[in-house]
Amino acid sequence: MEKGQAAPGLYNPSMEKYHFTYQNIHKTAKSMADRVKASGFDPDVIVAIGSGGFIPARIIRTYLGKPILAVGIAYYDAHDKPTEVPRKVQWIEEAERKLSGKKILLIDEVDDSRATLEYCIRELMSHHPAGIAVAVLHNKDKPKKGSIPEEVALYIAGEELPDVWIVYPWDAQDIDAHDAAAKSR
Amino acid sequence: MEKGQAAPGLYNPSMEKYHFTYQNIHKTAKSMADRVKASGFDPDVIVAIGSGGFIPARIIRTYLGKPILAVGIAYYDAHDKPTEVPRKVQWIEEAERKLSGKKILLIDEVDDSRATLEYCIRELMSHHPAGIAVAVLHNKDKPKKGSIPEEVALYIAGEELPDVWIVYPWDAQDIDAHDAAAKSR
Repeated sequence: MEKGQAAPGLYNPSMEKYHFTYQNIHKTAKSMADRVKASGFDPDVIVAIGSGGFIPARIIRTYLGKPILAVGIAYYDAHDKPTEVPRKVQWIEEAERKLSGKKILLIDEVDDSRATLEYCIRELMSHHPAGIAVAVLHNKDKPKKGSIPEEVALYIAGEELPDVWIVYPWDAQDIDAHDAAAKSR
Repeated sequence: MEKGQAAPGLYNPSMEKYHFTYQNIHKTAKSMADRVKASGFDPDVIVAIGSGGFIPARIIRTYLGKPILAVGIAYYDAHDKPTEVPRKVQWIEEAERKLSGKKILLIDEVDDSRATLEYCIRELMSHHPAGIAVAVLHNKDKPKKGSIPEEVALYIAGEELPDVWIVYPWDAQDIDAHDAAAKSR
């Protein structure tokens, strides 16, 4: 998702930061793919929620070998002002008509408020897929605004985390400094 | 792009392999963003060619702060058989109508035969953008099947490489073994 975590400015600066390296993310994505395989849920297609879901989805594709469709959801408007309701930056158009009868693995980086996930799941469900599984790298233990609909066959979080400020490697201005911060934790 | 490099099976097993770490890729993406900024080309939107372009596009977004639209191009059919001509796995539908008058930064991981790039550039041009720049992590020095249309304002390759077998970190089955192979080069 886009800016799906509360904006850094809204965080208490003393809030604990968790830095993850690309290698951490790659291994977590592998474990998620292993759990999808072990579950028996055999997706036809991966749907990546952009832009945070692009990198975990691409790594999971290595292990599951399925095509990726991308969707873009944002919580800001055309003038970069925050919005309460999600906005579709890009949605599956022609492709979504092909989702009918297909098994979808929906991927995002973090389950924060759960609002983006619920929104995307309900949009995908309206196209009558054969099944939906959801996989996120990280789930934050906090009160959720959204919920996972009952129709979801499988929900996987690569790691359960407290309500911390997650710093992903792809957001690093300086990847060496980021990796050093991750190691010092 | 999807399977845009010749399939590994088509390579001579003795062909030299270049392994790149995520940290290599992150730094190359930063240098690409720096060059885009220095050029004066100020994109409105990043278009990522999936799935290989997802990861460089997401990193470049960190430095340029522009939204990403994703397109999927494949050289295999629904039965996973190789095809000569590219097939749209996902194309920008509603969104592409918004491309008119916009400046586009098109991103892929590798410029191999150049066929995918030319195909995507021509498709995007048909929607009358204000400008197109192209950025790839790696350009291979080899005979090209496609060409970059004259209308392209800027072409950036993060690194120029000989015609080697590039191994990207997101394709690693074992990321530790991959990183070790990258270090031993």
